[in-house]
Amino acid sequence: MLAELSVRSFLGQLAGGSASPGGGATAALHGAQGAALIAMVCNLTIGRKRYKHLEPQMLASRQHVQILLAQLTDLIDRDAGAYDGVMAAYRLPKQTAEDQQMRSEAIQVGLEDATRVPLETMDACLKVLTVGESVLELGNPNVVSDGAAGILAAHTGMLTAALNVQINLNAIQDEEFIQESKTRMAALKAAGDNARLRSWALVEERLGM
Amino acid sequence: MLAELSVRSFLGQLAGGSASPGGGATAALHGAQGAALIAMVCNLTIGRKRYKHLEPQMLASRQHVQILLAQLTDLIDRDAGAYDGVMAAYRLPKQTAEDQQMRSEAIQVGLEDATRVPLETMDACLKVLTVGESVLELGNPNVVSDGAAGILAAHTGMLTAALNVQINLNAIQDEEFIQESKTRMAALKAAGDNARLRSWALVEERLGM
Repeated sequence: MLAELSVRSFLGQLAGGSASPGGGATAALHGAQGAALIAMVCNLTIGRKRYKHLEPQMLASRQHVQILLAQLTDLIDRDAGAYDGVMAAYRLPKQTAEDQQMRSEAIQVGLEDATRVPLETMDACLKVLTVGESVLELGNPNVVSDGAAGILAAHTGMLTAALNVQINLNAIQDEEFIQESKTRMAALKAAGDNARLRSWALVEERLGM
Repeated sequence: MLAELSVRSFLGQLAGGSASPGGGATAALHGAQGAALIAMVCNLTIGRKRYKHLEPQMLASRQHVQILLAQLTDLIDRDAGAYDGVMAAYRLPKQTAEDQQMRSEAIQVGLEDATRVPLETMDACLKVLTVGESVLELGNPNVVSDGAAGILAAHTGMLTAALNVQINLNAIQDEEFIQESKTRMAALKAAGDNARLRSWALVEERLGM
């Protein structure tokens, strides 16, 4: 599993001459870095006298981002796996008309799977952005730059996953699937962009940028 | 060393209740992901008949981003180390006036180091963006979404590092150091934003976004 590789080996595999892992895996890793940084801000707020009144909310936020961190860490591998599924379909035999028909259908099924995975990454990144916004606002201001880094990471995870949704949709034939996916992608992206903008206004004010 | 931890353990350390590793380490990791993805596009272009005429340029670009990948991987640890240096200075004794003077000077030295490291991360990310722009333009168009993911990652590495430059400058007293650092940060950021915009126009055209 990619998440069990050392950071250095993961980067080496990414840089290598195989198309997998690629951008989709990094989308999930960006999102996971975002979730981890928001969890860190919670951890540096929980248990401090000054923020005692926020304890229940910070505990709930921490639990939420820890679940998102686990989901996004799994998505690193699931994205690479979905891509490998498409590649396996492309390698199916194409001698007879029947072969060609089966191969073509398998490629389409693979591409739809490989579209659903980055859509799930986008959804998880949006949730990190939403929890992150309130943690950034209420949490320990000494680590505001770490919370802000978490917002940037989750937003980039979302934009990177959208690239993978788009490139797969370009090869998909089912018009209904394409339209549904595009609508979903646009809604997630709009919500993510808004959450990032709202958080950023706060970051610039707090950091004096 | 952080780069030798598994991806899962690194994320766990990031999420934990210590301020280090934090946003600065993720800035370097985003940049390293960007360098690795640009190297991948080079690797999927080199050795293919259709791109034979680009071979010398792609080999040079790959060598350049591999050096940047190594530098940014080191910066994951160097950023965490610089932060630990500041924390160690804060823990120095402050009983006597002399203690206080020494501690205060050590904190300032530590903060200046902790500012230079993310400035170096910004510089390396800008170089990834610059090489990435030409690789994206000329390289194998089948992996354009991976190249685009590399551009996003390197640009986010730069923005994340800028947060750390800013938060350290807020606690630094030397006005000349502050002004020099701000000028350098602004120049790096402007160049990085421009490189990202230029690449993005190409990505949107190629992906039909």
